[in-house]
Amino acid sequence: MHAYEIFKDLAIILTAAKLMGLLARKCKVPQVVGEILAGLLIGPSVLGLIEQTDFLSYMAEIGVILIMFSAGLETNLRDMIKTGPFACAVAVCGVFVPLLFGTLLYMAFYGIAAIGSIHFYKAVFIGVILTATSVGITVKALSELGKLKSELGTAIVSAAIIDDIIGIMVLTLVVGIGGNTSGGTAEILTVLVKTLLFFVFAIVVGLIFYRIFQWLDQGRHVHTQRIPIFGLALCMALAYSAEKFFGVADVTGAYLAGIILCNIRDAEYIDRKMSVSSYMMFGPVFFAGIGLKTNIEGMTWMMFAFSVCFVIVALISKIVGCSAISKLCGHNTTDSLIIGVGMMTRGEVALIVAQKGLSVGLLDPLYFTPVIILIVVSSILTPIILKILFNKKEKLAH
Amino acid sequence: MHAYEIFKDLAIILTAAKLMGLLARKCKVPQVVGEILAGLLIGPSVLGLIEQTDFLSYMAEIGVILIMFSAGLETNLRDMIKTGPFACAVAVCGVFVPLLFGTLLYMAFYGIAAIGSIHFYKAVFIGVILTATSVGITVKALSELGKLKSELGTAIVSAAIIDDIIGIMVLTLVVGIGGNTSGGTAEILTVLVKTLLFFVFAIVVGLIFYRIFQWLDQGRHVHTQRIPIFGLALCMALAYSAEKFFGVADVTGAYLAGIILCNIRDAEYIDRKMSVSSYMMFGPVFFAGIGLKTNIEGMTWMMFAFSVCFVIVALISKIVGCSAISKLCGHNTTDSLIIGVGMMTRGEVALIVAQKGLSVGLLDPLYFTPVIILIVVSSILTPIILKILFNKKEKLAH
Repeated sequence: MHAYEIFKDLAIILTAAKLMGLLARKCKVPQVVGEILAGLLIGPSVLGLIEQTDFLSYMAEIGVILIMFSAGLETNLRDMIKTGPFACAVAVCGVFVPLLFGTLLYMAFYGIAAIGSIHFYKAVFIGVILTATSVGITVKALSELGKLKSELGTAIVSAAIIDDIIGIMVLTLVVGIGGNTSGGTAEILTVLVKTLLFFVFAIVVGLIFYRIFQWLDQGRHVHTQRIPIFGLALCMALAYSAEKFFGVADVTGAYLAGIILCNIRDAEYIDRKMSVSSYMMFGPVFFAGIGLKTNIEGMTWMMFAFSVCFVIVALISKIVGCSAISKLCGHNTTDSLIIGVGMMTRGEVALIVAQKGLSVGLLDPLYFTPVIILIVVSSILTPIILKILFNKKEKLAH
Repeated sequence: MHAYEIFKDLAIILTAAKLMGLLARKCKVPQVVGEILAGLLIGPSVLGLIEQTDFLSYMAEIGVILIMFSAGLETNLRDMIKTGPFACAVAVCGVFVPLLFGTLLYMAFYGIAAIGSIHFYKAVFIGVILTATSVGITVKALSELGKLKSELGTAIVSAAIIDDIIGIMVLTLVVGIGGNTSGGTAEILTVLVKTLLFFVFAIVVGLIFYRIFQWLDQGRHVHTQRIPIFGLALCMALAYSAEKFFGVADVTGAYLAGIILCNIRDAEYIDRKMSVSSYMMFGPVFFAGIGLKTNIEGMTWMMFAFSVCFVIVALISKIVGCSAISKLCGHNTTDSLIIGVGMMTRGEVALIVAQKGLSVGLLDPLYFTPVIILIVVSSILTPIILKILFNKKEKLAH
């Protein structure tokens, strides 16, 4: 590929994403919905102007990392610790209810299977795909609504992060037992230990770098470029370490980097610089990229019916699981629904899980299309429903 | 390549570039020198932490585009038109003196050849490599010194742009006659017509988009994100069109996009947003990338001697050609030297030319190393010498 080809792709993506974003805002819908639809429009499904390339997926990956880093930087650490136990409860329900519903859906379509058979594990795998919430889109929607720092916002983001981690553990478990890879108990134990070690590592690194940045920050009356640059480097380094050494999602590492720096004096300044890079280039590439991945060729009626049910089950099961536990924990109905809806987005993690299933023989490549449709639909619906619910909440408050 | 691998590369590049940049500033040397040395340090030549990947070269390409777009935005159009004829004269001398000296250098090493023989064209090709000035590094150095908008700065940048265009024409000429490709006169004519058409195209597009942006800009009292985003999209679109449809370098397209927008009310605001993206990520990747490409393996003594002479001839010939014509046009000695030194940087265009020579059989792959050394040396020396000369100029003025 010639280097100049990337300029064409970027020019089209930036223009389409911004135009559709502005149009979305005119229709009182969050801009991010417009950006995803822009991707769908310029991608192979409609106009076919742009194809997903390696370069664009790397740019999108940087986009989601920057969004998570910003979310971390905007965290109120005190609120987070306060909402911690509740977020854990939401995450657990947010994993196991969709896991169960997904398994049942597959069996409803293709027949009940005995526990331990390959057919059974294939059914369970459909459930596994449904476990992980996509934090990126939720964070963007919450921040567009100005609710990212609210108590509910913090709870949703924390729960979505924990949910990813539990989801990855479940994946390892299912692949370990049902997949072609050997391992079983030993492998599960490894995952648990590695995840635990990652948090120990993050705390140690966090304390060290918090001191270093405090020292860099010290006694300066003007903002300097070095703090945001070193901050970004820390974010990248933690994102890399999380995936490479501990098998934890890179977004989790980026989010933790943000949390490490959220209490230094320049946190808001770093965040402002990140948001420029993010909205100027990486953000639109990430959101348009979701639409870009979709290709509705080769769809049968059976697959279509399955896809529709799959999307409905995916959304409903998260809302049921997360809202029920929220209600049980004493939240009112609107707040519980906000938490459930905030948790229902699915993103790249679902695709990564699907990819893993494909490689170990637990998933047919056909099932990629429903997963992508789920990502697009949930990404579009979540911001819209969240906005309605937050408006309702505010009306109730008055 | 896993997506997370790019985070490792970026984290290392950002940290090393910023640290070396700060160190350079402590030594009173422009930061960009530190960034290039950082690339050399972390690259295969010294520590071997990072290898040049496709992704990094695309990021670097975006970096140079952003730098050129900024340079365009900061242009004073009135000054540019005033310096136009002079810049043309400098560019012509800046192409033909190095072309002659490069040819002679090759003959001095490997013997004189009859005009028309393949050996003769190989000699001429070494000259062709020396023709194109790298604008990116000069622009960065001038802007760090606060001289980009000065009359001399504008003249240098304009001359470097015109120089690229003449250089590409000479390349087409030499390849057309001496290379394996057919063409000859017809091909040369095509290049001339295409280049002319590009400028006609740029003027038409420019007038249209200038009006559109003026209209977007109108009546707003607050800055909006849309103007920098559409500006960036225009920059990418022109960079792409230049290369794809007219065979003109992408950097020229990006620079023209900046010039189109340099007179709208929000020009400075766009520039500020670009510079954040530029210094936070793309800039360091571009400058460190120059050092990263260098690999001093497989160097013989003969090649070493040739490389040393090649670098000296490259630098001196540009200074001689450009300074002499400046002096003839009535500039004083210091100003003439500033113009000569400002024109002596070589960059990616030299590598692209070398690549072209390789593909048509006019250049041996061995000669890549001297070209890269020239890029590194000229990139490091230019900012340092420019700083000294500008200081001298200021002393003289007092």
